[in-house]
Amino acid sequence: MKRIVVVGAGFAGLNAARRMQRLQDVDITVIDRENHHLFQPLLYQVAMAALSPAEIAAPIRSLLAGGNARVIKARAERIDVAGKRVLTDSGEYPYDYLLLACGAQHAYFGREEWEQNAPGLKTLPQATEIRRRVLEAFEAAERERDAGLRRQHLTFVVVGGGPTGVELAGAIGEMSRYTLARDFRAIDPRQTRVILVEAGPRILPSFDAGLAARAMRDLESLGVQVWTAARVTDITPNGVTVGNEHVSASTVLWAAGVRAADIGRTLGVPVDQVGRVIVGDDLSVPGHPEVFVIGDLAHSQGEDGKPLPGVALVAMQQGQYAADMIRNDLLGRLRKPFRYRNLGQLATIGRSRAICEIFGLKLSGWLAWWVWLLVHIYRLSGFRNRIIVLVQWAWSYMTFTRGARLIVGKEWQAYGKEPE
Amino acid sequence: MKRIVVVGAGFAGLNAARRMQRLQDVDITVIDRENHHLFQPLLYQVAMAALSPAEIAAPIRSLLAGGNARVIKARAERIDVAGKRVLTDSGEYPYDYLLLACGAQHAYFGREEWEQNAPGLKTLPQATEIRRRVLEAFEAAERERDAGLRRQHLTFVVVGGGPTGVELAGAIGEMSRYTLARDFRAIDPRQTRVILVEAGPRILPSFDAGLAARAMRDLESLGVQVWTAARVTDITPNGVTVGNEHVSASTVLWAAGVRAADIGRTLGVPVDQVGRVIVGDDLSVPGHPEVFVIGDLAHSQGEDGKPLPGVALVAMQQGQYAADMIRNDLLGRLRKPFRYRNLGQLATIGRSRAICEIFGLKLSGWLAWWVWLLVHIYRLSGFRNRIIVLVQWAWSYMTFTRGARLIVGKEWQAYGKEPE
Repeated sequence: MKRIVVVGAGFAGLNAARRMQRLQDVDITVIDRENHHLFQPLLYQVAMAALSPAEIAAPIRSLLAGGNARVIKARAERIDVAGKRVLTDSGEYPYDYLLLACGAQHAYFGREEWEQNAPGLKTLPQATEIRRRVLEAFEAAERERDAGLRRQHLTFVVVGGGPTGVELAGAIGEMSRYTLARDFRAIDPRQTRVILVEAGPRILPSFDAGLAARAMRDLESLGVQVWTAARVTDITPNGVTVGNEHVSASTVLWAAGVRAADIGRTLGVPVDQVGRVIVGDDLSVPGHPEVFVIGDLAHSQGEDGKPLPGVALVAMQQGQYAADMIRNDLLGRLRKPFRYRNLGQLATIGRSRAICEIFGLKLSGWLAWWVWLLVHIYRLSGFRNRIIVLVQWAWSYMTFTRGARLIVGKEWQAYGKEPE
Repeated sequence: MKRIVVVGAGFAGLNAARRMQRLQDVDITVIDRENHHLFQPLLYQVAMAALSPAEIAAPIRSLLAGGNARVIKARAERIDVAGKRVLTDSGEYPYDYLLLACGAQHAYFGREEWEQNAPGLKTLPQATEIRRRVLEAFEAAERERDAGLRRQHLTFVVVGGGPTGVELAGAIGEMSRYTLARDFRAIDPRQTRVILVEAGPRILPSFDAGLAARAMRDLESLGVQVWTAARVTDITPNGVTVGNEHVSASTVLWAAGVRAADIGRTLGVPVDQVGRVIVGDDLSVPGHPEVFVIGDLAHSQGEDGKPLPGVALVAMQQGQYAADMIRNDLLGRLRKPFRYRNLGQLATIGRSRAICEIFGLKLSGWLAWWVWLLVHIYRLSGFRNRIIVLVQWAWSYMTFTRGARLIVGKEWQAYGKEPE
């Protein structure tokens, strides 16, 4: 009986565990510090008050119920590669095969103190904290009598021009112009200023240049100012410094960089500059064919020699691939190298605009938005969520409302801490 | 132009503000420390992972949009009755008429240190904290190897046999028997022990004795042990002491007592033993006809000479009544005394059982449950929420799943603190 341990139930780990559900004579344990799998591509919708946390998350136990996997809610702390065990905050788990899929978190390029002033968007508590900050800024502006401070409360800066930054900036622009427009007396939410700051020469660098230019025009039509080739040099509670220019803003959001989970370094094998574990063409680590690293934690080369991007599609395919290679091992078959099938990429800008590259096609505008919607609804794990999210979307689409405009507690203080 | 200030946007304050929406020549300000109105009767459904926070809450601004009321998110700290002003954490608001509707919170009868070990259920952060504790207890039991500790993790004590306590205990019993039954390996969630502790001679004292007995049988069929005439003498992180008996339990929930919001005492008029402001038969305070106290904060006598209960129906009628009396004043008409029209009361036990007294009828079983469902769906503020909640319910009803089984952060640490 081979013991297989999967650490992390994101796209990579969950797809691996599901793929192994029909394997015989194996003992599978899935370890995650959360009790839920998170549908990360829609996390910005929670941050922007369009969806509730439970609508993009499903219990890992339910997703794997009826299969052969045991689920343990625990925090994996270290891998003992020589002893073949995973050490967690509640006991150790020996393995014959390990699938390490712990993902990535935000990085501030050595300025970790910026995190307080500019939260990133990787977890549900971060999403509800961003929601709280954005909604609270409008409330503070409504109460404020000083014009300069009111302007500061109504200025939002998003750092990083990748898909997440574009989606956040577009959603704030749209929320201020449509959803909130009627709700305030002292302020006009349409005076909101949204600035998207990108250090590189253009936004959405992974997309076709023409599509990225279209996305930029769409953002500008929602009142978002796009500053490219602009480097953030400081972030304080009252604003950001871009180059030498200070921008007063009560709300700054960070979508500019990631680094791999720390547990990767405990394997004792080479990692790249953002901490990703460098894996071979079968996604195992050097000298340990029984240890696979998959998803955002892995540095795995595509056919062009560049590392594969940290997106859901890569993670899902890697999870399935690693499961298949374990099956091959058990059947005495040879492993084949991993090949990524790139089906495309998508980004939305507001309520009915998007850009997408899919099956070699380049789409923009409302058609791209519908493709985006269908792909995400289809992929959303857990059937019930899918129905609820569809109803939500239909309703929001017709009425311009946002259903989840809740300011609840100050979860920021909680989310950095260890769960008990 | 009369300035009317409403403090608190619960059932009383919100209904008052809505009733005044057509008044001419008034300047209405609604002050609340939250940005949302909360549908309290369904709060236990959030705690029990059946609904998401946003599904039972709606932004106050949206509920009053298009009317004559200005909404301010601020924490009212003191009433200056002589100077006719409300003092808040962000400025003061002068009034000609004041409607004070700040509600109630949990009380621990002088043992406030119990709150850490036995959270109450009055706010959304409390509901998500209770959800986290209950789900986390099953996770801890699954990891635990010691049989005694596993038993402790699977024991849940609910203190207080009113409607909230009955609903919580029934929901935990049902969740363990149906929703979670398939999801765990090491434990059998059906071994869960749920104890409902009530100090009085029977549960649901405000209901007809026959209906309460029926509710008790329904609870027992879900595996809930009902201990009446049982007084809690201590609560620790590891359990409760009932009389002289110690019960080991990792999760203790408090539904046993309330006290009125502290701001009532700043009026300088008599309050009762739980801090409610004693009002006259027009709901104003002695010597100040311009100050109304309504909802759970008011001690107002019913026709039987007893104080009216702290339920939504009383609060709503009082809000509408106070609004009407202000209109009468403005039109030079006399005030009439407040009369409560008692339409009935309801409590649910699990997925398809309830008891209700409505228009003089006494119902139990599935028919009562449907009455309960229709009444609550109908009353739920905000049309979108109503649709979503109906879909949720239909889905949960058919599949026994609970959609919102999320453990998110440790919000407990946050919820006692002031929002910034």
